Amino acid sequence: MSLTEIPGGAGAALRLRAGQAVRLINTHGSQVVDTWCLSAADTTEYLSVEHTRRMLFRLFPGEGDTLFSNRRTALLLIEQDSSGCLHDMLFACCDHWLYEFYGCAPGHANCRDNFIGALVRCGIAATQVPNPINFWMNVPVLPGPRIALHAPVSKPGDWLVLRALKDVVVIFSACPMDVTPVNGEDRTPKPVAYEIID
Amino acid sequence: MSLTEIPGGAGAALRLRAGQAVRLINTHGSQVVDTWCLSAADTTEYLSVEHTRRMLFRLFPGEGDTLFSNRRTALLLIEQDSSGCLHDMLFACCDHWLYEFYGCAPGHANCRDNFIGALVRCGIAATQVPNPINFWMNVPVLPGPRIALHAPVSKPGDWLVLRALKDVVVIFSACPMDVTPVNGEDRTPKPVAYEIID
Repeated sequence: MSLTEIPGGAGAALRLRAGQAVRLINTHGSQVVDTWCLSAADTTEYLSVEHTRRMLFRLFPGEGDTLFSNRRTALLLIEQDSSGCLHDMLFACCDHWLYEFYGCAPGHANCRDNFIGALVRCGIAATQVPNPINFWMNVPVLPGPRIALHAPVSKPGDWLVLRALKDVVVIFSACPMDVTPVNGEDRTPKPVAYEIID
Repeated sequence: MSLTEIPGGAGAALRLRAGQAVRLINTHGSQVVDTWCLSAADTTEYLSVEHTRRMLFRLFPGEGDTLFSNRRTALLLIEQDSSGCLHDMLFACCDHWLYEFYGCAPGHANCRDNFIGALVRCGIAATQVPNPINFWMNVPVLPGPRIALHAPVSKPGDWLVLRALKDVVVIFSACPMDVTPVNGEDRTPKPVAYEIID
């Protein structure tokens, strides 16, 4: 299948049958991708970072890790991860309240609206906004334990393969954050791309 | 106001007007209390640990910390904390799927059902089950960063004062977990108590 580009700051949703996978490519290397996964059979079942942490007993997931739902069902497998870097599971996605907090003008693009909008285009009404996995987002744990928000250390072309373990809907948002360095020191969201692979 | 006891393994919900507070007492010292807070005006606004971490830039909250909602509104203040110990915000509450995973018989009490049931008794239908704050739950961060599940280090009579910053509904569950040492090495849930203070 050919590559589909997601513009910097935008979102997309796709369906995977159990056994299919999606390859997600960080074209420019510095773009965080907020990622959600819902069970296609019942979209109130979602990838839950708080359940996944409880199963992994680790703060961050990596290659070979299974990601679990709020019903403790295996939904996705991180089959390959070229970056080997941290992938944040601690921070909520950005939303219009965050940009208001930062004093931005109304209407700033945000991952929460991207999630809801991408689902609507799939015919699915979002009933809640779970804590996403923020791929390539660099949130190191410091003494305290405090957490910090650093620019990504991923490289251009880094990629992940996410394998569906059930029929699922996957939602990506190329995070629109341009206030903090979460998407690189130039604070400029950039496109990413994906392809569905069997 | 007099003390209200919550039996070990059970849940309770209470309403606080803005400015009121609740004192929560860990009578036996070893009991984890899963705690949620909803805005009374719109119960789809909830205390969000993933938004609170983003505002505090710390993994665990303590005395003096404000706890934020999924709309980045200040909902609760941890006004006093006699224990000074960790309060987990990383793990989902226990649910019937977890006890099935452990091979327990069907019908095991669990914090998720306690949350839903306590809300129903207040006339509120739960639309989702947020990641709670698990007061006194001892989840240390180890190199990796891995996380572990240890017995509490709180002492009999330790207490917290939680001050409402908006009109809220607070839900407590004296966690029924009896498989892991989360509620002490004797794996026996015990009662806690609370009182509303002005």
